[in-house]
Amino acid sequence: MFFLNWSASTGWQKSRMSKITPKAAMDKPELSRRVSYEQLPDALAGVVVGCAECHTLNPETHKDSFDHNGYQVHTVVTPQDCSTCHSVEADQFKKNKMSHAYGNLEDNLLYRELTKSVTGMQSFQNMATTLQDPDELTLSDACRQCHGTSVQVEDFVVRETFYGDMEFPVLSGWPNQGVGRINPDGSKGSCSACHTRHHFSIEMARKPYTCSQCHKGPDVPAYKVYEVSKHGNIHSSLGREWDFDAVPWTIGKDLTAPTCATCHVSLVVDGEGVVVAERTHQMNDRLAWRIFGLPYAHPHPLSPDTTIIRNKAGLPLPTELTGEPVMEYLIDEAEQATRRARMEQVCTSCHSQSWVDGHFVRYENTIEKTNEMTLTATQILLAAWEKGAAKGPEQGNSIFNEAIEKMWVEQWLFYANSTRYSSAMIGADYGVFANGRWYMAKNIQEMVDRLHLKMKEE
Amino acid sequence: MFFLNWSASTGWQKSRMSKITPKAAMDKPELSRRVSYEQLPDALAGVVVGCAECHTLNPETHKDSFDHNGYQVHTVVTPQDCSTCHSVEADQFKKNKMSHAYGNLEDNLLYRELTKSVTGMQSFQNMATTLQDPDELTLSDACRQCHGTSVQVEDFVVRETFYGDMEFPVLSGWPNQGVGRINPDGSKGSCSACHTRHHFSIEMARKPYTCSQCHKGPDVPAYKVYEVSKHGNIHSSLGREWDFDAVPWTIGKDLTAPTCATCHVSLVVDGEGVVVAERTHQMNDRLAWRIFGLPYAHPHPLSPDTTIIRNKAGLPLPTELTGEPVMEYLIDEAEQATRRARMEQVCTSCHSQSWVDGHFVRYENTIEKTNEMTLTATQILLAAWEKGAAKGPEQGNSIFNEAIEKMWVEQWLFYANSTRYSSAMIGADYGVFANGRWYMAKNIQEMVDRLHLKMKEE
Amino acid sequence: MFFLNWSASTGWQKSRMSKITPKAAMDKPELSRRVSYEQLPDALAGVVVGCAECHTLNPETHKDSFDHNGYQVHTVVTPQDCSTCHSVEADQFKKNKMSHAYGNLEDNLLYRELTKSVTGMQSFQNMATTLQDPDELTLSDACRQCHGTSVQVEDFVVRETFYGDMEFPVLSGWPNQGVGRINPDGSKGSCSACHTRHHFSIEMARKPYTCSQCHKGPDVPAYKVYEVSKHGNIHSSLGREWDFDAVPWTIGKDLTAPTCATCHVSLVVDGEGVVVAERTHQMNDRLAWRIFGLPYAHPHPLSPDTTIIRNKAGLPLPTELTGEPVMEYLIDEAEQATRRARMEQVCTSCHSQSWVDGHFVRYENTIEKTNEMTLTATQILLAAWEKGAAKGPEQGNSIFNEAIEKMWVEQWLFYANSTRYSSAMIGADYGVFANGRWYMAKNIQEMVDRLHLKMKEE
Repeated sequence: MFFLNWSASTGWQKSRMSKITPKAAMDKPELSRRVSYEQLPDALAGVVVGCAECHTLNPETHKDSFDHNGYQVHTVVTPQDCSTCHSVEADQFKKNKMSHAYGNLEDNLLYRELTKSVTGMQSFQNMATTLQDPDELTLSDACRQCHGTSVQVEDFVVRETFYGDMEFPVLSGWPNQGVGRINPDGSKGSCSACHTRHHFSIEMARKPYTCSQCHKGPDVPAYKVYEVSKHGNIHSSLGREWDFDAVPWTIGKDLTAPTCATCHVSLVVDGEGVVVAERTHQMNDRLAWRIFGLPYAHPHPLSPDTTIIRNKAGLPLPTELTGEPVMEYLIDEAEQATRRARMEQVCTSCHSQSWVDGHFVRYENTIEKTNEMTLTATQILLAAWEKGAAKGPEQGNSIFNEAIEKMWVEQWLFYANSTRYSSAMIGADYGVFANGRWYMAKNIQEMVDRLHLKMKEE
Repeated sequence: MFFLNWSASTGWQKSRMSKITPKAAMDKPELSRRVSYEQLPDALAGVVVGCAECHTLNPETHKDSFDHNGYQVHTVVTPQDCSTCHSVEADQFKKNKMSHAYGNLEDNLLYRELTKSVTGMQSFQNMATTLQDPDELTLSDACRQCHGTSVQVEDFVVRETFYGDMEFPVLSGWPNQGVGRINPDGSKGSCSACHTRHHFSIEMARKPYTCSQCHKGPDVPAYKVYEVSKHGNIHSSLGREWDFDAVPWTIGKDLTAPTCATCHVSLVVDGEGVVVAERTHQMNDRLAWRIFGLPYAHPHPLSPDTTIIRNKAGLPLPTELTGEPVMEYLIDEAEQATRRARMEQVCTSCHSQSWVDGHFVRYENTIEKTNEMTLTATQILLAAWEKGAAKGPEQGNSIFNEAIEKMWVEQWLFYANSTRYSSAMIGADYGVFANGRWYMAKNIQEMVDRLHLKMKEE
Repeated sequence: MFFLNWSASTGWQKSRMSKITPKAAMDKPELSRRVSYEQLPDALAGVVVGCAECHTLNPETHKDSFDHNGYQVHTVVTPQDCSTCHSVEADQFKKNKMSHAYGNLEDNLLYRELTKSVTGMQSFQNMATTLQDPDELTLSDACRQCHGTSVQVEDFVVRETFYGDMEFPVLSGWPNQGVGRINPDGSKGSCSACHTRHHFSIEMARKPYTCSQCHKGPDVPAYKVYEVSKHGNIHSSLGREWDFDAVPWTIGKDLTAPTCATCHVSLVVDGEGVVVAERTHQMNDRLAWRIFGLPYAHPHPLSPDTTIIRNKAGLPLPTELTGEPVMEYLIDEAEQATRRARMEQVCTSCHSQSWVDGHFVRYENTIEKTNEMTLTATQILLAAWEKGAAKGPEQGNSIFNEAIEKMWVEQWLFYANSTRYSSAMIGADYGVFANGRWYMAKNIQEMVDRLHLKMKEE
């Protein structure tokens, strides 16, 4: 009964959608535009974008369409629908690994094993544990809250409504707003992961709280690091005076320190209106290194679909287990330089070149050193497998299940990771005692202790 | 010398208390009322509620009363005092487990053991530790900060004041604003736990920061989960435009996403003024399941006094050690359905029924699965006791003291718990890597490792 | 190219610096002054303080000076420069341990060992680990982000600029805003650690987010504890209405609950304009106890340079390894009483004396008890060394490297610490389950388990 949805209707009333037609939006000066269509369906040109304008788009591809007083409406509005007015952003987002977040987890055998080791039920019998495959509801409630579910029409059901009995689709994996959601129309992703319905507020998308929905845990502590950085402090202390709604976003005038969006997404200009960075919805456009989620930091993958990657050992990993990058699937140094240069354009709007140079030298050193510490942890794990202190992959066992294996995972998934984020944004303690170098160092000692204790045990 | 208390006097001046008489407050339309008395003492009807109006109430029951220029005043204003004008809320609060938070901890033998294991001093001699009973000051500084202290008049002392020498009571367990405080007048609880003196601001009570005072740690990460949820993000990003002071609280108009209070406490109405949920100060009124603080999630207890509960094994627990609920002391399925329906009324103000249905199916699955993972941990602990890897309760030992026992406690007190909160509010990583399923899975493997290592040790 | 630095120029334009001359600032009533010079260089008296006024000061001592269109300018503005107008604050800051944060870490042999154990690379060969000395870039990226780097002129480099080719200094340890930075002019510290350039906003320095930059990790969770305290809740809920810019800062009028600065730094007055506390930039001026960073809480050191301290065992520690304070280097009871009295002046502005008395009795009990729990952990560590379960200092080994030694460090650096902060500010769960007593108790049991398992191993 979303027509009596009070937050949807009032949110929408407060939104820009309710106040300007797509045509008028396109008539704005280029840098001020928030739409990017080449051609607009006639029906949309002259009206503001209300409920029906989105929820009745593309009925032919929407398997979740249902009849509503003679109109075909659908529940799940998708990037394909949004691309009607925001085609450039939708196209960029297709090149964004985030839009592939479902498949990159689900169709990578190694990640599926990791997922299973986290979400599968364990039972205890005869002094040992066994691990079952995770159920669908748990997966939807865990990894897929951020990565996205696969939303499929399972059935139709009749419900009593204000307008009489109506038939609604029954959706699997629903509700979900994960950034890599598989939609009933076959498209990938969910714009409302960041552009929360039904405000669709650019202010909200630009505030760091939005990113924190998915980027706050120990596996990806971006928000936590930002929060204690100087940038984050300025935002917390003085941000209430900033203009989060201005397009383009003018450094020094609209904001005096960056949020996540400033450095990674937004169209930003300097005080004379000169473009500092173009808007991008491919969020690694300004990033040379991929610093989280994998055992070693490495250059960004060429394709947003990372399931195609194979290292020399045949594993779907962008590096060998001992850290060497599989360059065939990764951006080369020239592309890394291009992306770093884009980011430095943003940095040098507020910082001198020597400041920025000093920063990046440190950051790349930290990437190298954290990779080294992961290698050390990996060598201990290899010794554990060799010495029989844990059951290794040679015998077809998972590499994620036993305690010492999970310690190894934390080395890179939590600690190396946190240290790199801290370096990238100067988040002080997240590189030391708050899941940083202290834990990298301690974890190695714990792994060595465990290795020797388990060897005696055999 | 609270008569020269600058924050008290200025806070009060800014409060509604200083601006409206109880009589005028009662004359408001029913849904706008913030008072609920049946009959008011004559002395209070026609004046605004200042210092004396509260601090001189019910002197006969207040053992902490003392003479102040001919008036009997008391330091500790209690729910019994507040009930003079807010009788309905005070009565509801009596049925709220929170008001029993002191006794439910103190008078439950098992919880007293847990408390001792956390707060008692440990010493090390002859290669082993011994555990002493905790001292009163430590208890007041630890568990009782939230659960409440027992505030008793220990003595009287003369102090020099602005008005000459005056005699003041010396109170045990003071200061304290714990929600289950035992007061000198015999009443239970502290309204100022949430309604911070002397603003008594409904705005503050409705903001999630108030709940975070007690509900942020790993044992009850409600605020942390809320913060990274979509609801929390909307509040952080757009909440500064909301009206936190309106009574009733209108969804869509005064607020566009819920805070803790919206779902659990407040009187909320829809855009047409229709009541969506009645105000309640029995916070489990809209909750079917009790998801924290005990080894297994279970239906809410019938009585706010949980010390009366006994399972089949004779333990003061609402489930067996293996998870079966002790239904005799718990609400039945019909009552669970009633409470869930109350909550769904709030949900469906902004979400479709299929959204809400999908959400609750997942949530109840997560309750079941987290209980299973606790059972597995319990079975490992039972094996440890049986095999002599830890000293079990059979020999009269505490079940909370040894390392492997503490690992078991973390399984349910931290990890199962966090996972359920994440499911309830869609707090993404708190159900996975931030104290969620990752830790449930890892902890089981750590317990098994420890079990085997300790068995070899013997 | 900081002359095209958009945030610097717009930040400065919004700052008080751009709006008032030092002379006019000194002509204000004494309590409203934000400057404290005795005599001002003629050149500064009659103009507002712009870029050149700071960046060209004291060229003779600034090794980082370089020629800029005929002027000698320098990059790193230092406390020595700021002292031109803020001499009293600069002098106080010299007595603040924070200004010695670089040396106190670097020139203390024991701390250097701890630093090495955290930041040095570990490698694994022949079933054992080795530890290397940390590299300079890592140190700058880790501990020194807060403690400060040593900024030295390494070289000069020519860069193309808007004004043609210019020669700039190449600085080691740059960028850095650590509070104990060693500057190119030989001075210690960085005012911009808290007074962020180029707003130099007192509002920002008074907000708790500023302190959180360095005081949020598990080693010093001051901000985290504040955030869940009643004080922090009031700030979060109602702080947006406060006046963070007023000098003096009036309790009850400008603010109704303290931030970090209120209790530890700011000049605060009561509602009648009477001084409650003088401004201080020696932040332990109102503190009797030093509660973090060392194995045992103890009275504050007499000198901000703590490298001079030696205990009876010859270690650079303010207590023995078993907890007894080395009083020769520490403030005595009279000075402790003086400092506590200064703090109580702030407390009693809003709380009764009995409230405050009760609070401090609990706090000092918690200091005693947490010291006891550290002693217990220390005794287990001593036993481990004695029994060969770890390699002790007798053989010249570090006391920080092995797993059980790191467990001991966490006992005091994280858990005792967190418990004390929680007690000091009533941060509830940080004294129990959030890195508090739960972990102190569990860690001791884990250490005992490890001790026995490692003994069997030998």
